[in-house]
Amino acid sequence: MATSAMLIARDDAAIETAVARLMERFGTRCATGESIREQHGHTTTYLTNQPPDAVVFASSTEEVAEIVRTCAEFGVPLIPFGTGTSLEGHLNAPAGGISIDLSAMNRIVAVNAEDLDCTVEAGVTRMQLNENLRDQGLFFPIDPGADASLGGMAATRASGTNAVRYGTMKDNVLALTAVMADGTIVRTGSRARKSSAGYDLTRLLVGSEGTLAVITEVTLKLSGIPGAVSAGVCPFPDVESACNAVIMTIQSGLPVARIEFLDEHQVRACNAYSKLDLAEMPTLFLEFHGTEAGVAEQADRFGDIAEEFGGGPFDWATRTEDRSRLWKARHEAYWASLRLKPAAKGVSTDVCVPISRLAECVMATRADIEENGFTATMVGHVGDGNFHVLVLFDPDNPDEMAATNGFIERLNWRAIEMGGTCTGEHGIGQGKMKYMAREHGPALDVMRTIKRALDPGNIMNPGKIFTLDG
Amino acid sequence: MATSAMLIARDDAAIETAVARLMERFGTRCATGESIREQHGHTTTYLTNQPPDAVVFASSTEEVAEIVRTCAEFGVPLIPFGTGTSLEGHLNAPAGGISIDLSAMNRIVAVNAEDLDCTVEAGVTRMQLNENLRDQGLFFPIDPGADASLGGMAATRASGTNAVRYGTMKDNVLALTAVMADGTIVRTGSRARKSSAGYDLTRLLVGSEGTLAVITEVTLKLSGIPGAVSAGVCPFPDVESACNAVIMTIQSGLPVARIEFLDEHQVRACNAYSKLDLAEMPTLFLEFHGTEAGVAEQADRFGDIAEEFGGGPFDWATRTEDRSRLWKARHEAYWASLRLKPAAKGVSTDVCVPISRLAECVMATRADIEENGFTATMVGHVGDGNFHVLVLFDPDNPDEMAATNGFIERLNWRAIEMGGTCTGEHGIGQGKMKYMAREHGPALDVMRTIKRALDPGNIMNPGKIFTLDG
Repeated sequence: MATSAMLIARDDAAIETAVARLMERFGTRCATGESIREQHGHTTTYLTNQPPDAVVFASSTEEVAEIVRTCAEFGVPLIPFGTGTSLEGHLNAPAGGISIDLSAMNRIVAVNAEDLDCTVEAGVTRMQLNENLRDQGLFFPIDPGADASLGGMAATRASGTNAVRYGTMKDNVLALTAVMADGTIVRTGSRARKSSAGYDLTRLLVGSEGTLAVITEVTLKLSGIPGAVSAGVCPFPDVESACNAVIMTIQSGLPVARIEFLDEHQVRACNAYSKLDLAEMPTLFLEFHGTEAGVAEQADRFGDIAEEFGGGPFDWATRTEDRSRLWKARHEAYWASLRLKPAAKGVSTDVCVPISRLAECVMATRADIEENGFTATMVGHVGDGNFHVLVLFDPDNPDEMAATNGFIERLNWRAIEMGGTCTGEHGIGQGKMKYMAREHGPALDVMRTIKRALDPGNIMNPGKIFTLDG
Repeated sequence: MATSAMLIARDDAAIETAVARLMERFGTRCATGESIREQHGHTTTYLTNQPPDAVVFASSTEEVAEIVRTCAEFGVPLIPFGTGTSLEGHLNAPAGGISIDLSAMNRIVAVNAEDLDCTVEAGVTRMQLNENLRDQGLFFPIDPGADASLGGMAATRASGTNAVRYGTMKDNVLALTAVMADGTIVRTGSRARKSSAGYDLTRLLVGSEGTLAVITEVTLKLSGIPGAVSAGVCPFPDVESACNAVIMTIQSGLPVARIEFLDEHQVRACNAYSKLDLAEMPTLFLEFHGTEAGVAEQADRFGDIAEEFGGGPFDWATRTEDRSRLWKARHEAYWASLRLKPAAKGVSTDVCVPISRLAECVMATRADIEENGFTATMVGHVGDGNFHVLVLFDPDNPDEMAATNGFIERLNWRAIEMGGTCTGEHGIGQGKMKYMAREHGPALDVMRTIKRALDPGNIMNPGKIFTLDG
């Protein structure tokens, strides 16, 4: 399988022709200014910015199909763009090409409250959707750190703090509208809650990072806003006991809605940035959803588990404002950490292991950080065995940069060796391609065969997941 | 896309050579007797039995790979076989070929209680697994009517009565071992609870019905046996009020573990077959999982909803024996219905619609049954909008058979028109191919492109999902 080569290289003449065609068609909605192009390449980490040659602001699925057909005609790469918050270089244009900016496709097409689902255009962000839903007593639970677009979240199989209870994008997308590499518009899935009617194209496109299709509309499962919510904070004497409390919580079947780990460095950063006064110790942030009685029962059970591992006191945030402050701080953790080392760049890496290996993986990673004297914070959606390390380094110091890269590589190999994955939620992009062969073995060739079949010209976000030769 | 033809037709010489090779290699484990071949074709409904040319009993993934390589070498079709309980003709050999019987691959490879997961060979059945898990306080929730193999359940994206709470096979398979069309053994996914590392091959193979790969091992999520379980039965004055009570239950976010609909004909059949004494009215069977307090609260809330729609009394089955009797009767519903018309054949069809359309779809279907004077029962996993109709007809009466087919077609078009699917859980096989184009539109060509890329010789269960020309 996967034998035919599909290398795509920069073709200046083809790009020039395609851009001219798109400018003629889209006028000022086809932009080629340097700053707008740079802003549509990768901007969030140390990965090099590789700007596209033009940015087209699309306003409908049909327009996206038109742009794709133009790119296909001239063999020019295209890169879908939502909010630009990807962390692994998904938006870069290593062989040049056209960025399709979907942010103007921000209409909420339908909310079917009676079916607990909705359909939105790809550019709608998670916060915009939740603002819209609030009055109907509904919410969409997936919450990556950024206020990402729902199309981008689908494309990277995003998750966040609620995944332990509500699942990831994989579990919450019912159907998609997407434009394939030849410009065909397809609808995958339906609003039925389950189906055995053929291949699960929805799940194939979720997580495909724009390499198979441009997602233009997303049909999502919604959840009812729980009748009762409580949140709390629980410090632990060390990282190991915090992790062990998480493992026991999950194993005992306690239906926590959120269970987030922050190491003491992250707590210190949050205290400073978000004006909290938490004890600077390894800490769990928790949230419980249910009825009044159910939530109280869950909290009691968690309190017992925490105590068993030497944690506590378990401090309640019962008021809505206190809860919001806590979760705001959690979502600001990335920005808070960046302040720990002024002028440094940060790289946030993401792995996920089976829950039984969590403490071991976190401890080994912590030891590695200490041995190498990194400034680094650890946070995690630990109920899923998923955690992130943010390493701060001086981008002008090649030794620091090399050391950081070495650390990230060791962390990824460690997670894979433990039966885990090199990314729980950030995706592969450019940054994690090197781990794919070891993680997937011969299955990587199956992925490559699918890519080559659905995108024979290798124009769909080339150089992501797979190298530029597909 | 999907332009190259890949018609496969019966090739006697190739089949003879492949069978000779397999007999030499597998001895008595390669069987060609007529009865064993017939038993490995389709046997459960009115679809014609099309036996394979030989049945090979495989005992390991490596042996499956060897059989696949032999089939690939000679261009001979292969059909994976678990327990033979498929309802849509998945096991038939319309172009001849080799049935790979996986029932001897029935080892439980690993139970990782601390991670709530396990790995089993494809031939392990759901009841065998649950027997094995019981002592550890764990269970696997997916329960199609038959005691199907877990490989077969993955291949058809099966579900059952617990899906409303625990999801379907799509949601409960973490990873797979599978043999691709060229004999390559792949491992998709990992034991990590979530991953964004490339294409979701696990979800692509779940529901692919043996047309892309032979699944040989399945890694499954497990659930803790709930601390408290209660079940109950609630009759309703008519079908509409029962459906409306279901809709309200789901919309209000009540986390029912099971909510099953039986129409009055099905209740009558169950009373006779399973020796129950239920009122012969449209009825819901329910089950609640949780803590003692949680379960009692859920039951109270359901009781209120039922009353609002004129249902009741809501009868409790608190004792384990009573609950078992109830669910045994539910799982025997198919056999019970067959007794309603002696010597008749039954055809069980399966659709799924958005929950808001459930009452409308069930009512229209009921009217169709009555207008045509069919002997038919309706049951449903209605919490997902999924229901089945079992029509009994005389297979020697061509008029009855044509009328039954016409009814089934109308039901499927109705479900698709309502934004639903032609199968919630039985799969496409041979029986539902005709609905694929209308349900999926241009997305069907995307499926076909994937099939052609991964199985260029069209040897993997040809004539299922797609016609014999792929």
